[in-house]
Amino acid sequence: MQEIRKYVSDNKQRFLDELFELLRFPSVSADPKFKEDVIKTAEFVAEKLKAAGAEKVEICPTAGYPIVYAEKIIDKSLPTVLVYGHYDVQPPDPLDLWKTPPFEPTIRDEKIYARGSCDDKGQFYMHVKAFELMMETNTLPCNIKFMIEGEEEVGSANLGIFVGENKERLKADVVLISDTSMISLEHPSLETGLRGLSYVEVEVTGPNRDLHSGVYGGAVANPATILAKLIASMHDENNHITIPGFYKDVAELSAQEREDLNKAPYDEAEYKKDLEVDELWGEKEYSTLERTGTRPTLEVNGIWGGYIGEGAKTVLPSKAYAKISMRLVPNQNSDEITKLFQDHFEKIAPKSVKVKVSPHHGGEPVVTPTDSVAYKAAQKAILQSFGKEPIPTRGGGSIPIVALFEKELGIKTVLMGFGLDSDNLHSPNEKFDIANFYKGIETIPLFHKYFAELSKS
Amino acid sequence: MQEIRKYVSDNKQRFLDELFELLRFPSVSADPKFKEDVIKTAEFVAEKLKAAGAEKVEICPTAGYPIVYAEKIIDKSLPTVLVYGHYDVQPPDPLDLWKTPPFEPTIRDEKIYARGSCDDKGQFYMHVKAFELMMETNTLPCNIKFMIEGEEEVGSANLGIFVGENKERLKADVVLISDTSMISLEHPSLETGLRGLSYVEVEVTGPNRDLHSGVYGGAVANPATILAKLIASMHDENNHITIPGFYKDVAELSAQEREDLNKAPYDEAEYKKDLEVDELWGEKEYSTLERTGTRPTLEVNGIWGGYIGEGAKTVLPSKAYAKISMRLVPNQNSDEITKLFQDHFEKIAPKSVKVKVSPHHGGEPVVTPTDSVAYKAAQKAILQSFGKEPIPTRGGGSIPIVALFEKELGIKTVLMGFGLDSDNLHSPNEKFDIANFYKGIETIPLFHKYFAELSKS
Repeated sequence: MQEIRKYVSDNKQRFLDELFELLRFPSVSADPKFKEDVIKTAEFVAEKLKAAGAEKVEICPTAGYPIVYAEKIIDKSLPTVLVYGHYDVQPPDPLDLWKTPPFEPTIRDEKIYARGSCDDKGQFYMHVKAFELMMETNTLPCNIKFMIEGEEEVGSANLGIFVGENKERLKADVVLISDTSMISLEHPSLETGLRGLSYVEVEVTGPNRDLHSGVYGGAVANPATILAKLIASMHDENNHITIPGFYKDVAELSAQEREDLNKAPYDEAEYKKDLEVDELWGEKEYSTLERTGTRPTLEVNGIWGGYIGEGAKTVLPSKAYAKISMRLVPNQNSDEITKLFQDHFEKIAPKSVKVKVSPHHGGEPVVTPTDSVAYKAAQKAILQSFGKEPIPTRGGGSIPIVALFEKELGIKTVLMGFGLDSDNLHSPNEKFDIANFYKGIETIPLFHKYFAELSKS
Repeated sequence: MQEIRKYVSDNKQRFLDELFELLRFPSVSADPKFKEDVIKTAEFVAEKLKAAGAEKVEICPTAGYPIVYAEKIIDKSLPTVLVYGHYDVQPPDPLDLWKTPPFEPTIRDEKIYARGSCDDKGQFYMHVKAFELMMETNTLPCNIKFMIEGEEEVGSANLGIFVGENKERLKADVVLISDTSMISLEHPSLETGLRGLSYVEVEVTGPNRDLHSGVYGGAVANPATILAKLIASMHDENNHITIPGFYKDVAELSAQEREDLNKAPYDEAEYKKDLEVDELWGEKEYSTLERTGTRPTLEVNGIWGGYIGEGAKTVLPSKAYAKISMRLVPNQNSDEITKLFQDHFEKIAPKSVKVKVSPHHGGEPVVTPTDSVAYKAAQKAILQSFGKEPIPTRGGGSIPIVALFEKELGIKTVLMGFGLDSDNLHSPNEKFDIANFYKGIETIPLFHKYFAELSKS
């Protein structure tokens, strides 16, 4: 522990400088105009892994963005940890809400502000530096493999194929991922589940052209009005989702599970104050922790149609659109839910408009075991570095790949995240606390240590 | 009549060339970035009026865009016609749907395609050329005044003030406006009413920042979803507007009036085919002609919120917006309706969000007399130039200024429009049939002739 802390403090500034370099790449996978930057980012990650002492470093091409693979096999008889992360980031929009430029990392009161600072560059880079630490101090206790992808924010479509084609190379005893959050440094926690995702885009077409709302208004269906009605109908008065069959596979938690889940520290007044909302919203008869962790949702991620420029334009639009995503919980199936949405949306649309539903991407929900050697190793590592037992929580986000690892490689995952819910993931002013960054680099070697030890016994 | 036709055919090409010059100015009053172009347009209009023989031509400054005034007083004892028009145009968005550039007029099968070709540059310019014709042929039978404004598409706020301050200068016996449509060249018509307008913009605010839809989704009100619910609730299952008191002042038509109104040629199959919709939409128990001409409406002109860029972004937006306009009929009052909307919208908004309603602009509905000397003059002029009695119709559009003229100047208006409903006003590919342009120039001098004659008797 002494040794670890010394190495981290001796290299504090360099670790930060390197992370800043990484954060300066606008690796937005959703927007084709950043293609070159995304690829440069992959090259940067490969370099740093090599520099840290990794072998067989390879930038593996895919139909989309490349996957960076690297490994260090010290002894085939020792257990192997597969570290997963992603070097792509969410679009920075809306740009005007950023206090400082999204791709020019800036420190304000001990926090690193930049797109990707937490999700996931700051977090996967902790593993690169922890690996360097173990190599430099000759304390790497097990074999390690890295798989850092560039399409997590757009559904990891090609990673699935890559995993299917590289089962041998990816063989490992556990997948270790830092792409989730903990409650706080005072309340370290480990996520034991993730929601799945089904993301669709809908298009509603009324008349074949924009019309004068005076000449035609009142006689022709307005696609924006119809879209509003369709969206409005998807939650009932208790905020239950109304798509037939939507809940049929949802695994209801036992009274005990619900009780345990609700033990996690949660201050509703604080929560509302942080978001500046007077009242929370959600599915009746469930707590906030249940709503975000264990219940499926349907959210409008974007909506647009008609004239959205300066001033006033009296137009009856021809088309209106919405991006809608559903978060899924065990045992819902992404493709099935997408199909249910599509059928329902097409069914409820009135004859006065035409609708089109285009699936974007999806991912399956997962629950990670809390009785595994790997989970125990994570518990011990956090106990030692934080001085506190981690609290098990359910994450509301999605990392589609986790379910895929289980299916394709038969490997369970440990979600050891060091971010905070307040890090503004996917929002303007995303940040990552410097303290969490260093704490992660300090905790990760302990995980490998205990994972190797506990695997022996 | 011979003389008129000869002058028009002798100057056909020049009339068209001048109109094209006028159409090339992108005089979009709603968007500040076109400010200079709008002002250049006013200067062009003033020049052309002077060249045609007008006197006291003046570009009158206002708090917004200037008003072009001109007159020709030949004999104080003769009646005076005040011609109103507007040189500003609607924004051309969405640009990608234009077959040819909106500000580069193009002729396709005898139609002039350009923003403003019909609304209202093409139409008010007929009056400038008809005036030139009467001057050149010494046939101007009465006094004439021109008032061409540059803010009609944004509510004519400053024209109201101008009119109030220039009652003496604007004295006239009738206001003549060509800013409406007729059924067709085969079915000439005269609009005898216009709808009023109440235009608002609404903002719905949920959390104080965009959120990760996985981390917070299901626990915090999504402003896009709430906005959809609010909009959806504003029409009931019969497409009646649900704002309390919205219909209380609506003048119901008599059975006779409804019957007359529905005599106008209308082919539902054609109407649907032209718009490519399988089914029409509207207030139950009213015909299309009634819905667009005599009933108030509420239309979403634009809606936006969240991520509307390429690909997928799993965000729970902080804000969602909509531009909503209501068309009003006698005897609704614009300010009152705006207030009703505002109160209702704020009242039905749930506590989980904050809402703001900002009025854009409005205008009062009008009905023009069909028993006046001026209306009879218009009927005779059309009968002579088209060979057919004009059919009286109710227009669905709004020209806020018409009600104001009545109130401030005590002058009634004649709406002698030569456009067609199919001219794509406010839409991409706005057009004006060349035939209608020339027909208007030919008909207008006849109006002046008969108006002067009938005024004597």
